[in-house]
Amino acid sequence: MSKVAIIMGSNSDLPVMQEAIDILKGFDIEVEVDIVSAHRTPEKLFEFSKNAHTRGISVIIAGAGGAAHLPGMVASLSPLPIIGVPVKSSNSIDGWDSILSILQMPGGVPVATVALNGAKNAGILAAQIIGSHDSCVLDKIIVYKEGLKLKVEDAAKIIKQ
Amino acid sequence: MSKVAIIMGSNSDLPVMQEAIDILKGFDIEVEVDIVSAHRTPEKLFEFSKNAHTRGISVIIAGAGGAAHLPGMVASLSPLPIIGVPVKSSNSIDGWDSILSILQMPGGVPVATVALNGAKNAGILAAQIIGSHDSCVLDKIIVYKEGLKLKVEDAAKIIKQ
Amino acid sequence: MSKVAIIMGSNSDLPVMQEAIDILKGFDIEVEVDIVSAHRTPEKLFEFSKNAHTRGISVIIAGAGGAAHLPGMVASLSPLPIIGVPVKSSNSIDGWDSILSILQMPGGVPVATVALNGAKNAGILAAQIIGSHDSCVLDKIIVYKEGLKLKVEDAAKIIKQ
Amino acid sequence: MSKVAIIMGSNSDLPVMQEAIDILKGFDIEVEVDIVSAHRTPEKLFEFSKNAHTRGISVIIAGAGGAAHLPGMVASLSPLPIIGVPVKSSNSIDGWDSILSILQMPGGVPVATVALNGAKNAGILAAQIIGSHDSCVLDKIIVYKEGLKLKVEDAAKIIKQ
Amino acid sequence: MSKVAIIMGSNSDLPVMQEAIDILKGFDIEVEVDIVSAHRTPEKLFEFSKNAHTRGISVIIAGAGGAAHLPGMVASLSPLPIIGVPVKSSNSIDGWDSILSILQMPGGVPVATVALNGAKNAGILAAQIIGSHDSCVLDKIIVYKEGLKLKVEDAAKIIKQ
Amino acid sequence: MSKVAIIMGSNSDLPVMQEAIDILKGFDIEVEVDIVSAHRTPEKLFEFSKNAHTRGISVIIAGAGGAAHLPGMVASLSPLPIIGVPVKSSNSIDGWDSILSILQMPGGVPVATVALNGAKNAGILAAQIIGSHDSCVLDKIIVYKEGLKLKVEDAAKIIKQ
Amino acid sequence: MSKVAIIMGSNSDLPVMQEAIDILKGFDIEVEVDIVSAHRTPEKLFEFSKNAHTRGISVIIAGAGGAAHLPGMVASLSPLPIIGVPVKSSNSIDGWDSILSILQMPGGVPVATVALNGAKNAGILAAQIIGSHDSCVLDKIIVYKEGLKLKVEDAAKIIKQ
Amino acid sequence: MSKVAIIMGSNSDLPVMQEAIDILKGFDIEVEVDIVSAHRTPEKLFEFSKNAHTRGISVIIAGAGGAAHLPGMVASLSPLPIIGVPVKSSNSIDGWDSILSILQMPGGVPVATVALNGAKNAGILAAQIIGSHDSCVLDKIIVYKEGLKLKVEDAAKIIKQ
Repeated sequence: MSKVAIIMGSNSDLPVMQEAIDILKGFDIEVEVDIVSAHRTPEKLFEFSKNAHTRGISVIIAGAGGAAHLPGMVASLSPLPIIGVPVKSSNSIDGWDSILSILQMPGGVPVATVALNGAKNAGILAAQIIGSHDSCVLDKIIVYKEGLKLKVEDAAKIIKQ
Repeated sequence: MSKVAIIMGSNSDLPVMQEAIDILKGFDIEVEVDIVSAHRTPEKLFEFSKNAHTRGISVIIAGAGGAAHLPGMVASLSPLPIIGVPVKSSNSIDGWDSILSILQMPGGVPVATVALNGAKNAGILAAQIIGSHDSCVLDKIIVYKEGLKLKVEDAAKIIKQ
Repeated sequence: MSKVAIIMGSNSDLPVMQEAIDILKGFDIEVEVDIVSAHRTPEKLFEFSKNAHTRGISVIIAGAGGAAHLPGMVASLSPLPIIGVPVKSSNSIDGWDSILSILQMPGGVPVATVALNGAKNAGILAAQIIGSHDSCVLDKIIVYKEGLKLKVEDAAKIIKQ
Repeated sequence: MSKVAIIMGSNSDLPVMQEAIDILKGFDIEVEVDIVSAHRTPEKLFEFSKNAHTRGISVIIAGAGGAAHLPGMVASLSPLPIIGVPVKSSNSIDGWDSILSILQMPGGVPVATVALNGAKNAGILAAQIIGSHDSCVLDKIIVYKEGLKLKVEDAAKIIKQ
Repeated sequence: MSKVAIIMGSNSDLPVMQEAIDILKGFDIEVEVDIVSAHRTPEKLFEFSKNAHTRGISVIIAGAGGAAHLPGMVASLSPLPIIGVPVKSSNSIDGWDSILSILQMPGGVPVATVALNGAKNAGILAAQIIGSHDSCVLDKIIVYKEGLKLKVEDAAKIIKQ
Repeated sequence: MSKVAIIMGSNSDLPVMQEAIDILKGFDIEVEVDIVSAHRTPEKLFEFSKNAHTRGISVIIAGAGGAAHLPGMVASLSPLPIIGVPVKSSNSIDGWDSILSILQMPGGVPVATVALNGAKNAGILAAQIIGSHDSCVLDKIIVYKEGLKLKVEDAAKIIKQ
Repeated sequence: MSKVAIIMGSNSDLPVMQEAIDILKGFDIEVEVDIVSAHRTPEKLFEFSKNAHTRGISVIIAGAGGAAHLPGMVASLSPLPIIGVPVKSSNSIDGWDSILSILQMPGGVPVATVALNGAKNAGILAAQIIGSHDSCVLDKIIVYKEGLKLKVEDAAKIIKQ
Repeated sequence: MSKVAIIMGSNSDLPVMQEAIDILKGFDIEVEVDIVSAHRTPEKLFEFSKNAHTRGISVIIAGAGGAAHLPGMVASLSPLPIIGVPVKSSNSIDGWDSILSILQMPGGVPVATVALNGAKNAGILAAQIIGSHDSCVLDKIIVYKEGLKLKVEDAAKIIKQ
């Protein structure tokens, strides 16, 4: 079965990244969570990235802030699809550094970037990637999107009164 | 077999988006190409997005520039993973509008955004998504990345002389 | 009689959009208010936009934040003048994404964009559009502008003392 | 019959603003064109703005670049709907100054801002404003939008071959 | 004797602009203070600007925020040196709109722009302008600058302990 | 008689700064021109700035690009009004560095900043500063502004035909 | 023995700059601390910068905010390596002015710029500069980096539980 | 003797980085040049960075563009001072991505960042780092700075004629 790895550059990123964990658990997709710092634990970064695809992981979500090199460096070392979450960390300039250093990868080494602090969407995207070949997960996503619609319709009813 | 749909908001986006077509063909992945404009052909957008996952498509790449609503609106309508390519079109403000209107999707509806004009990386990412459950494609990506390395090593030899 | 529809992408936009409702009511212009999410209720977006001009609505005000596709998608589907309000929502990057994804519409599909969080001005603009062919509303706008002047003059008197 | 005034801060803005003239003529809407500089002919600005609504004009399109005060100052003096076109003039910083000094009007005095160099859309928006109470113009806009769709469909046919 | 007029677009700008009043009073330079809104009291703007140089005023300081047209419009109408203070008002986008709509004046109509919220420096600059032909005021500026130095030296003594 | 010093950080700034020289000569105001680099000739910067007010100079115009420290450092050392011209030099990031490093001076040490590459306006502002106490120069500025108006009116005549 | 001078433009920069002092003391490197304002104590700036390399100082760390000229002016006057710390001071525009006016030095006069408020890294960089020829300090840096790794590993253990 | 390593992410960076090579050769400092891509040759990056300080290298200059991870990753792995050159490469957004992804390193792992395309200054900074403990190199820098001054003085003579 498909498994998603969720890594982050620092434990201070956890409050943001928790949304990715929660949404994937809601889809009954197995996750493993770890802290891997590109700048402070580069050897762990190498080992993790080189081997992830051999350990049953099919998607990696990596969150980091500031000069955020973690998602891109994992993408450099792993053949798997990598989802990058730009985190608006305390040392970030309104998130612009986080976004640009994750998004603007050179030709050959993509990172699937989501919105600033968009860990929830990273989790949904990981589920969609699995759902692209697993009709059971695809169905769950269709149901999830239906749920989004119902919530808006409920709010609309209240506002129209 | 998995198929990738590559759509764009205007035929003027084709020179940028061609790189996605080429790289996927290089991986022997079937592609279909179309022009779907969120603002000028909204009905086509609806029909395309609603049905893509029922027609054997597993990933959609959507490129657009300026106030680029195409990737996000496809994501609104399809359960598949959507890759957005911000195009630096002639009416774009240095690409910032293209990037922000694709990247900053609300919680619940992700778009996997790549770099400005990064259609090549969109193609590779689509292949990686397929490769996450298709070992044959995964192997091709591993070979592709090996090729990137060899090119750098060749360039390094020349520069060191 | 002319009616203005005020829609927003989420009920969290209501505190900002309320100013448009209030100012139009102050001009005795009929309003209808609804939540229409481009990304979560795309079918409702279609139905609303396609039919608004057949239901006696003459101007549509649409507010949204982040990758704000609502105003542009309504403009794609309706022949009416669409006023877009960029909302500085919690997931927005200081409002830049909201502004650019509403303002930078491609040739053929305009959105009349007002200032960030400028719902009050959206309401006044809607009234001005109606006033452009309804001398009674035009007169109310002239009176309103006179009122703005008087408030400044009162404040000036206090500051000069 | 409704008439649209198109003014600009300098004759160097004409190549951009010509698109507004052309599109309105295509809709058989009468236009008058003039140069009115907020900074070099302030008296003309006053006279023009104060009287426009008494001369049969129902919408004013104003284009300017850099510290672009023309649209906002016209809005200060006229009760009509004012459409502002931020021009990327030679002294502008990539258009940011033009956009922000037109868009960010204070509460009470709106300017309907279109995209950078978006004079074509300013013309369409002016037509939509007239169309909001003139079904003949409304029908022309519906036809115009149908034409946009057909052009995309033609381009799509070519690209799919 | 030289007099400095200090005007602002709204009484909400007073907390920022007070620093200009205070510093000029500290230099024993006569000031007059008023609220003049380019967008809400355009006639007052005209009258004030046209006549200021005939009323013994030699420098005008104008503060405004958002799409800040006041300093530039005064410069359009008066031959005096105009100092513009970009105010980071509540409706401003981090001050960028205030700065760009004051700074980026077209050739022919300068505004001497100071830092965001830099009303104190506007006051000092007005004094320097008077001091450029009034040796008594020039001497006060020399003394003032000496005072700045002494404060730094005192702070330096404390930090070195 | 009043004299204006025009200095620049590099001879590559001359094409931009020439406009200040030309406009001041057109007003029959004496100018002296020099290259003073804050970073390469700091001793000259000191000597020049410390003594300018004792040599009959009443206003200093300083142009520089990139991390542009020249205007601010002259302001640090001279009690005269300093006009800063942000130059969009080849090493500048679209002019943003030039603008911000000249404009954002700390409290106590103002620089009268004009638009990017706005040397012409720097010259006019210097003339206005002299004109604030020299009615002969003031009259020339009134005539100059009248000339600006006539040019616009001529252009307007052509466009209306 | 090598000594590092840490200077700042204002005592309000001390809370940020303290991190540089602390980290260098942790490496047993001698520091001297002073306030030197480019704009308020230019003579002190000159004297300090001209002589630092003759007083046993081998690296200078300079922190400043807004139009931050201190690091660049010290670099203009001293042959030593200068490390610039952009401070997000109260008068700074989100730090952009601080960064650009320190980073964008012209060819010939470098400043080694660290992250916004990155005084800690300025201290480490100064230690690395000393360590580049002092194996004892180099060893301390290797140990310090090892410590960073251990902290991440500890945090990882907790998160994996 | 001290040696400087100059690496870059791609051979397309060579035209920019050549200035670092040239200036260091002008100071008679030994350089070694190589291409090391963080994203395409991560193993080489590791090996190079881990061992550089054991091979007689005392400073590393790393240039890269876009999401530029090379300087930061070298800094992660090496205890030496790392100088980062943000390159305005063809895929960069006006250089902002290059600057922010090099400059904004997290606490603990500094990169000494120079101006956009500032390879010349990177070379001078490397020489200054060596000069901080090698009086012969320090003297060369003093002479170099004297040369900068003479060039400005020569240009000043011409402009004053």
